[in-house]
Amino acid sequence: MLGKIALEECWTIPEGLKNNDPGKYVAAGTSDRLTNELLDIHGTRLQQMDENGVDFMVLSFVSPGCQGITDPVQAEALATLANNKLEEEVMKNPKRFAAFAAVSMHDPAQAAEELRRCMTKMKGFVGVLLNDFQSAGTDGNEMIFFDQPKYDPFWKAANDLEAPVYLHPRVSTPLIREQMWKGRPWLDFSALGYADRLNMHILGIITNGILDRFPKVKLIFGHMGEHIPYDIYRIDHKLDRARFPNMPMRKDKLVRDYFGDQVFITTSGHFSTPALICAMGEVGSQSIMFSIDYPFESIPNGCVWWDEYVSINHHDLVNIGRNNALKVLPRLTQEPHNLSSMTPAECQVGGLKTDSVTYGMYNEDWNRRLVKH
Amino acid sequence: MLGKIALEECWTIPEGLKNNDPGKYVAAGTSDRLTNELLDIHGTRLQQMDENGVDFMVLSFVSPGCQGITDPVQAEALATLANNKLEEEVMKNPKRFAAFAAVSMHDPAQAAEELRRCMTKMKGFVGVLLNDFQSAGTDGNEMIFFDQPKYDPFWKAANDLEAPVYLHPRVSTPLIREQMWKGRPWLDFSALGYADRLNMHILGIITNGILDRFPKVKLIFGHMGEHIPYDIYRIDHKLDRARFPNMPMRKDKLVRDYFGDQVFITTSGHFSTPALICAMGEVGSQSIMFSIDYPFESIPNGCVWWDEYVSINHHDLVNIGRNNALKVLPRLTQEPHNLSSMTPAECQVGGLKTDSVTYGMYNEDWNRRLVKH
Amino acid sequence: MLGKIALEECWTIPEGLKNNDPGKYVAAGTSDRLTNELLDIHGTRLQQMDENGVDFMVLSFVSPGCQGITDPVQAEALATLANNKLEEEVMKNPKRFAAFAAVSMHDPAQAAEELRRCMTKMKGFVGVLLNDFQSAGTDGNEMIFFDQPKYDPFWKAANDLEAPVYLHPRVSTPLIREQMWKGRPWLDFSALGYADRLNMHILGIITNGILDRFPKVKLIFGHMGEHIPYDIYRIDHKLDRARFPNMPMRKDKLVRDYFGDQVFITTSGHFSTPALICAMGEVGSQSIMFSIDYPFESIPNGCVWWDEYVSINHHDLVNIGRNNALKVLPRLTQEPHNLSSMTPAECQVGGLKTDSVTYGMYNEDWNRRLVKH
Amino acid sequence: MLGKIALEECWTIPEGLKNNDPGKYVAAGTSDRLTNELLDIHGTRLQQMDENGVDFMVLSFVSPGCQGITDPVQAEALATLANNKLEEEVMKNPKRFAAFAAVSMHDPAQAAEELRRCMTKMKGFVGVLLNDFQSAGTDGNEMIFFDQPKYDPFWKAANDLEAPVYLHPRVSTPLIREQMWKGRPWLDFSALGYADRLNMHILGIITNGILDRFPKVKLIFGHMGEHIPYDIYRIDHKLDRARFPNMPMRKDKLVRDYFGDQVFITTSGHFSTPALICAMGEVGSQSIMFSIDYPFESIPNGCVWWDEYVSINHHDLVNIGRNNALKVLPRLTQEPHNLSSMTPAECQVGGLKTDSVTYGMYNEDWNRRLVKH
Repeated sequence: MLGKIALEECWTIPEGLKNNDPGKYVAAGTSDRLTNELLDIHGTRLQQMDENGVDFMVLSFVSPGCQGITDPVQAEALATLANNKLEEEVMKNPKRFAAFAAVSMHDPAQAAEELRRCMTKMKGFVGVLLNDFQSAGTDGNEMIFFDQPKYDPFWKAANDLEAPVYLHPRVSTPLIREQMWKGRPWLDFSALGYADRLNMHILGIITNGILDRFPKVKLIFGHMGEHIPYDIYRIDHKLDRARFPNMPMRKDKLVRDYFGDQVFITTSGHFSTPALICAMGEVGSQSIMFSIDYPFESIPNGCVWWDEYVSINHHDLVNIGRNNALKVLPRLTQEPHNLSSMTPAECQVGGLKTDSVTYGMYNEDWNRRLVKH
Repeated sequence: MLGKIALEECWTIPEGLKNNDPGKYVAAGTSDRLTNELLDIHGTRLQQMDENGVDFMVLSFVSPGCQGITDPVQAEALATLANNKLEEEVMKNPKRFAAFAAVSMHDPAQAAEELRRCMTKMKGFVGVLLNDFQSAGTDGNEMIFFDQPKYDPFWKAANDLEAPVYLHPRVSTPLIREQMWKGRPWLDFSALGYADRLNMHILGIITNGILDRFPKVKLIFGHMGEHIPYDIYRIDHKLDRARFPNMPMRKDKLVRDYFGDQVFITTSGHFSTPALICAMGEVGSQSIMFSIDYPFESIPNGCVWWDEYVSINHHDLVNIGRNNALKVLPRLTQEPHNLSSMTPAECQVGGLKTDSVTYGMYNEDWNRRLVKH
Repeated sequence: MLGKIALEECWTIPEGLKNNDPGKYVAAGTSDRLTNELLDIHGTRLQQMDENGVDFMVLSFVSPGCQGITDPVQAEALATLANNKLEEEVMKNPKRFAAFAAVSMHDPAQAAEELRRCMTKMKGFVGVLLNDFQSAGTDGNEMIFFDQPKYDPFWKAANDLEAPVYLHPRVSTPLIREQMWKGRPWLDFSALGYADRLNMHILGIITNGILDRFPKVKLIFGHMGEHIPYDIYRIDHKLDRARFPNMPMRKDKLVRDYFGDQVFITTSGHFSTPALICAMGEVGSQSIMFSIDYPFESIPNGCVWWDEYVSINHHDLVNIGRNNALKVLPRLTQEPHNLSSMTPAECQVGGLKTDSVTYGMYNEDWNRRLVKH
Repeated sequence: MLGKIALEECWTIPEGLKNNDPGKYVAAGTSDRLTNELLDIHGTRLQQMDENGVDFMVLSFVSPGCQGITDPVQAEALATLANNKLEEEVMKNPKRFAAFAAVSMHDPAQAAEELRRCMTKMKGFVGVLLNDFQSAGTDGNEMIFFDQPKYDPFWKAANDLEAPVYLHPRVSTPLIREQMWKGRPWLDFSALGYADRLNMHILGIITNGILDRFPKVKLIFGHMGEHIPYDIYRIDHKLDRARFPNMPMRKDKLVRDYFGDQVFITTSGHFSTPALICAMGEVGSQSIMFSIDYPFESIPNGCVWWDEYVSINHHDLVNIGRNNALKVLPRLTQEPHNLSSMTPAECQVGGLKTDSVTYGMYNEDWNRRLVKH
């Protein structure tokens, strides 16, 4: 499919590597490659986008980003630096790239201010990305969650600026790691722990009524919804309002009801067709957007899945692969990005190629096995 | 779900019963009931619509209608009569009813003229419904299909008038019945024969290039697509263009590609969730619209299925149940019908009732079995 | 997946080509290839089986076979010839091949006798395959269906011999072709007409009570069920027993109830994952068996679909791909075939290859697009 | 469906209420009811089983049970008491009830011994149930997980006794609650926290190689798999063996591969058809068993969902609803329970009732809306 838009695509700067080098966590021998892919935008990344039908990427500062920095001053400075640098890079090729703002979340007012700066003084930003909780405290064990009333100034800014908020997972604190993941550290990362923690934060934001108080806020999260779509019946069923009368969320709504209007998921890093179909059933195709999670996933891997393996109809394929993002992130349709929606035919989804008069029996192109190359 | 729109809903007039009394074909003891339900619009029908959340019905003259009349003059006169009568009835309550025009298809030019009359001189019509092939000949064994070039004048009128064409099944001819269905007559009707014949006609229309020559023509057919969505891979796969170089359909398109733009299906009379989900997968929710097939199906049966048993997300439920019809049949949004799209909340889909503070454990309303009453 | 068993795999003999050369119907330039592939067993066919993980094929005489021969004497002689020849070929390599018997169906007693001969005097046969109706009459327009009481002797033999009956589609008669398919001849074959006719015959057999009178009879049919699984709700719903009190099928059963016990389908020629998943939902994985439809489908095409594209769990994949066939066709587990069931691991489904210590991120094998070779 | 077997069904004794009264956590006004339902076996529970087609329940001591008791001596004494009492109750009606053993997990050898006692000296036990981690320490903040090598004696006993191990969720520790769930306490229980913690423990057991070292151990967990089936692609994809060379699980297997052989899930408390269908796709129907989670779910609620709303084929319905349990828990087929597998017809799944000659159009029974009563 041509014209794909990808939303959870990471990037970093040399100054970011000092605090946070994801290359430390990968398989032996692949660290340099990962680091280089994170630093790159206009080279290999763009080339692979071209080769794989990715029209556009929204870039974000690699997790945990500013959320991993316990010192507020340092975190805020890094956010400013990252945003300035990202603006500069995006504006080199705004037809292909946009950015989610990075913010320190130590101080909600300051976060709101930095988000306002990105959304009003700069041109390349289409929303903001938060890496789960904000680390704080001298030992890094304090976790600040953004679902508490104190954070309303941040959500108000996101609401007023109509800046969608991407919620991205992150590594745990030393204390949690010691308490819960020792003895099974391989589970603490993207295989399980990322989702097990982030889904609590996401549902905390929803059930604490933030989407009700700020009805223009949109939440986006990846990895096919951090387990939530599969459990949406049980989540709503068990948030018994008689048992939890003080839960702030609107009494006349279910968590399910926010999907497609204020809550959206992406396919990043979870290239499973049964999971996609489950999500389409429970939260609907209009709640889902394609993403890759580069460079923690390969661009060809994610795109081959989408282009060749996902057995859904053309309309949903193109809407999830591209058009939904234009509705959720309307800045993408404006200067300097100017993206517009595409039909299945424009995306080369469906149809018979004009140089092929056959389809089916004795089609030479089908009479072979597939191989990777 | 409130606000449902139903599209394959039958009706007749006493003059129609002379040629065609569907009551003959039903179970002993139910004939009068069926006849009465066919003749009624504003009584039991409307009451059941109110009781079951059906906001709107598009009425059509019961099958085979004019397609069952071999004499052209009689067929044309009956079409005129039925359309005049239907206009009169619809205009008694245009907020709840509209109509598909009936036409004799003996003469494509005359059919075009009658369609033009309905769509331009009268107010209640939103499209046209054809009951498969036109019977002709003294023995009623001649079958006239509308996928041949001779019928381009009709399709041109449908195109120019932007009148969607509903393709509805009908009974077979005496010869076909004798040749194929004797020994298994129970299969000749809605259980199988209806779809086995109509899907040929539908695919004849598509593969003979009518949708290409008349790009504003939209086809609608019921019963979850008359088997086609399930077999759409095989249909396209086996319409090998090298084998059939003279097939007129565009060489660069698959049959699949027309769904959602020019081809649509309804749920009439096939209240199966697995079939619905299959159709959503293969042709997409934007290609599907709710319908009942009253009075050959009961309104409560179809509506209970839709309201209580279909486990799909709220957006698709409301789009299929209502909103898609407004896009496919734009006349519904205009005078005198003035329908508009509704949100899940407006349709009372999702949400918690304001008088209920609970959901889930120890919810009294769930702690019981369901019964029919 | 290793170990696949395929059940709808065609073959012919030079004597068969005289009456029936399928090469006439294919795309220009491919006729010789098709003819050669039909005649071959131990050459290209076996090589492609080896290359694509097909452990075993049950061969059958290419459609319409004896059902296409209007003269009873000729039809019976051709059946005998074909069966003798097929026995000879199968016994050259019974670890890889078995056969469905061909029978003339002009005379049910003679058909029973020939089936008995194949199942008791010869070693390679595991059931019988019928190509829809038997052509008869001087003009070839007479269609004999096997769902009438006259055919009980045949069904009794199939029951007593425990010989499953594969029901395969065939071309129409000249009269039907003229009446219904002229003007759209490309639809008369595998794209649509095959299924539209065969599903009538299949449901005729079931609803006429043959499975009730002969409870050891098993029916198998291909192409993902000739439209039936998708419409099984509507079929049962519309076979209203009050309306059709003379329908012989057991009054306490639905058509649906026979699936998995006496009725089975295969995937031949319909390599659609949504259709497969729909069938799994409606009739259950235990009712489904893998097949290809060689040489009307390519072996690599069918196998690549199964091995690479079908996103179902390993147990169902292996059961549908292999193990179910051993239950439905128990002769396969006996001399001289001696097939036995296999686990997913034995079929190399799932698992990580022992020479690969990685899966996922930075797995080189995934970091590329797929191509056909 | 008659004949259902339910596996995650809770019970307690007055001595258990002292430490752990689940009534404390429920909606105001429902506490007494919950407590009474937990204490009851042969009264309301059995009556509701009869009314709802539940043939059999495997009872277990209510969570957190012995896992919630930090003092080893007390925990062990409570396990003995609960098991003795449960044996006594089960043996009053072993045709309808069996039990999972409760064990203290402070000392793996003692746990093994108590399990051995239950499985060899008593008659009513068919396996063992663990409530996630064992609480320990004076402040109750120590969490003992059973996936570490120290616990091999317990797993060896489960293996040698062929006692399946049901892994059930539990409440968190004071420290975790304070650190993570304050500000969103409603999420800490069955809506989210239960699964977010237990899935870590389950995957810890699998990835630490316990199923490899003890190949007769079977794990069962409820709530449609505690999020795992939906994420199974991502879990396997991200457990990159090159990155985690020390992960003990077999290098040639994926987590996915254990499902259906050593890993099983139940439907307890997650009555969502899309989630069920997703699980059937990813891990297969042979990996899934029906359960309710009484009295935290209502018996009618769970059974109405299963009997009326789950739109899957009859074979899978009956296998998941009953027959799979007999394979996973073979003790159920032995004295004193003597359960045997049932066909769909025996479970009254499918079919037409003998006193009903109709199905479909003008079936009075369908021509009404459903209501709860």
